[in-house]
Amino acid sequence: MGEHIHRHRHEAMLSVEEARERILRFFDVLPTEDAPILDAQGQVLAGDVVGAFDIPSLDNSAMDGFAVQSASLAGAADSSPVELRVVDSVAAGDLPTTAVGPGTAVRIMTGAPIPDGADSVVPFEDTDESERKAAGAGTDRVGMRHEPGPGENVRRAGKDIRRGDLVLERGAALRPAEIGVLASLGRRTVRVVRRPVVAILATGDELVEIGTEAAPGKVYDSNSYTIVSAVRRAGGVPRRLGIAADDLDALDAKLDRAAGADMLITTAGVSKGDYDVVKDVLARRGKVELWSVRMRPAKPLAFGTIRIGRDGTVPHLGLPGNPVSALVAFEQFGRAAIHKMMGRGAAARPTIEAVLEEPIHNTDGRRVYARAIISRRDGGYVARLTGDQSSNLLTSMARANGLAICPEDEAVKHAGETVKVEMIDWPEEVF
Amino acid sequence: MGEHIHRHRHEAMLSVEEARERILRFFDVLPTEDAPILDAQGQVLAGDVVGAFDIPSLDNSAMDGFAVQSASLAGAADSSPVELRVVDSVAAGDLPTTAVGPGTAVRIMTGAPIPDGADSVVPFEDTDESERKAAGAGTDRVGMRHEPGPGENVRRAGKDIRRGDLVLERGAALRPAEIGVLASLGRRTVRVVRRPVVAILATGDELVEIGTEAAPGKVYDSNSYTIVSAVRRAGGVPRRLGIAADDLDALDAKLDRAAGADMLITTAGVSKGDYDVVKDVLARRGKVELWSVRMRPAKPLAFGTIRIGRDGTVPHLGLPGNPVSALVAFEQFGRAAIHKMMGRGAAARPTIEAVLEEPIHNTDGRRVYARAIISRRDGGYVARLTGDQSSNLLTSMARANGLAICPEDEAVKHAGETVKVEMIDWPEEVF
Repeated sequence: MGEHIHRHRHEAMLSVEEARERILRFFDVLPTEDAPILDAQGQVLAGDVVGAFDIPSLDNSAMDGFAVQSASLAGAADSSPVELRVVDSVAAGDLPTTAVGPGTAVRIMTGAPIPDGADSVVPFEDTDESERKAAGAGTDRVGMRHEPGPGENVRRAGKDIRRGDLVLERGAALRPAEIGVLASLGRRTVRVVRRPVVAILATGDELVEIGTEAAPGKVYDSNSYTIVSAVRRAGGVPRRLGIAADDLDALDAKLDRAAGADMLITTAGVSKGDYDVVKDVLARRGKVELWSVRMRPAKPLAFGTIRIGRDGTVPHLGLPGNPVSALVAFEQFGRAAIHKMMGRGAAARPTIEAVLEEPIHNTDGRRVYARAIISRRDGGYVARLTGDQSSNLLTSMARANGLAICPEDEAVKHAGETVKVEMIDWPEEVF
Repeated sequence: MGEHIHRHRHEAMLSVEEARERILRFFDVLPTEDAPILDAQGQVLAGDVVGAFDIPSLDNSAMDGFAVQSASLAGAADSSPVELRVVDSVAAGDLPTTAVGPGTAVRIMTGAPIPDGADSVVPFEDTDESERKAAGAGTDRVGMRHEPGPGENVRRAGKDIRRGDLVLERGAALRPAEIGVLASLGRRTVRVVRRPVVAILATGDELVEIGTEAAPGKVYDSNSYTIVSAVRRAGGVPRRLGIAADDLDALDAKLDRAAGADMLITTAGVSKGDYDVVKDVLARRGKVELWSVRMRPAKPLAFGTIRIGRDGTVPHLGLPGNPVSALVAFEQFGRAAIHKMMGRGAAARPTIEAVLEEPIHNTDGRRVYARAIISRRDGGYVARLTGDQSSNLLTSMARANGLAICPEDEAVKHAGETVKVEMIDWPEEVF
């Protein structure tokens, strides 16, 4: 039993960075897939996107007005309008059918192709068309009050995107603007890095499913719900396996449901103490190391691989069972793995600096991630802790928008000191 | 034709704030719904959540160790261990069956209920249990090397959440931690504010659908895709109606598909110029005002209501047709309306201050939203513009992570000046 479970009790604790680096070694950027552009929101481009044609495809008008030959309007001004004969009109989406010559104009709407012969556009407000209309006069002739330069109000073909241009770079995350760019290229689908599927299993004999009655001494499983949400937020596709109780066959069946997943996350069963069935099964089906990470909360962590099916091996991240520890450890390790698989760059949360309103104590040489509410003051940020920092108190995490850090080698960060804060959220009332 | 279309040509332009305020008057917080907790991610609590029972429900152990009477261990220390008789063991999820008395202990795992009679827990590492095991000795008696205070390593019932406690407040957005809290309360569903359904219609005779062939002079509809993505990102449920071309019946049928939506967003058809069919139909079916907003891009804007079905009326936001204008105007107005309907507080994007690397020019008294790439330097932020700022160049928006602002009443913000930047994104490489 447990021959593959290695507890490095006397090994020095790992730093957060060491643990993350060891974990990330087991993950690669996932294969690519073609997805409809709207479905690919939040995914990362698998390759450069190059313009296949000019945008706009033809020279076109930047204004509603009249396409003219600028030479026809030498000297035109408010005080000396020059009258041109209006020979046609062209709307966006139409192709012009009449060319513009000296002394003539074609009425044109924004986006409509410039007729042959024209080199510029005079906007309506620089003409007397509306006065003529108001006076009930015909508009087959219109007075132009402005002498345009050649090219004025003309958008050249290829001005936005030229055929062959690099339009979006490999690795770009698809946000609304990028999805719009893909649509403007006529693309129905796009090649992106696949999202990782993450199987999530809560372990513990004391756990019961929400919506059922909890006998005394039992507690509702919250970790699997927290982690499902956090996986989704990080861009992964969660697959909740439920709760693993102390039953070998049931547990084996649950683990089989992790087949094809890119990562298995379990919660609990990583602290010191007796091995339980979960750990036993995990060890029998794979290899799992129990680590101590120099952080608070979430010192105990498990990492390994587990065999699923005949040949499949799934990396396995074992988070602590305390609710806050599970979420903080997920933020440091699970999220980083998901981002790596998705082809996204940064592994860590964005960090700001904030002035502490109360001290953070570090009693045992671990990096403290204190749940904090960050707010803006005098152009900077201040951090208030969310009360009781015990690792079972998930409500302290619910109120927090950041994790304020006391480094592992400092015994205390005093009130008034500036600390780094890993932001969980971008609360709009703050920034 | 167009009797309900009001063009306030001579009216002073509206500020962004005035336009937003007028628009938001038409929207209220939406009705509530019960949703499974995982489906409610990102939605807002419709009411306070109060603890229905104590958590933990029973006094329980904070450590793996031995439950004892502290009085049994007076003077216990490394140098003077006190031996207790181990009378039972209790795991998490079990109920203890044997009481602890003077001179006895119950082996206990983290989270397991404290047996009657015990008042504290001595962790394994403060005992000689492992040495006894290693020596092959029995562990029916174990030496304790620490004298615990009463209550030491005991988590009291109700310590985390007490029955009747306010656990989560009305208006809180549900993130992973909040969803975990709801699960810990045993809640399968939660009452939240419904997400708004937003119907999206691109208008313009020049538009063709992606994935098809575009004839010369035609352009692919990108706006509806951009806005669908942006609506989703803001928390709304987009309903894409497609493209409205110059055909009354087809257009009417498309608008009918907005039935039941909480907002209709159209793109294009709000600039000066001839009324087209789209505007005509919109006016016939409702009321639409064409505004000029003191902003660049996105000066022209339409807002009104449209009748759908016999009694339905849907607020209608008409965005400009230029791709960048459409997205910038959505950010200012559409997103704010969605957030208001969802019960989320802040209307505007988070704002930071950054030092400009190049000037922003304001030629006509409008507030300029310049697409910018914000990066960190020397503890502050710098803003580099994304090249050509013309409003048809969506690629300038794709590269940007913020909108750097030159106020309406300043002709220029010079390089080196500090400006406000509305952040589009929270790029991890930046913060």
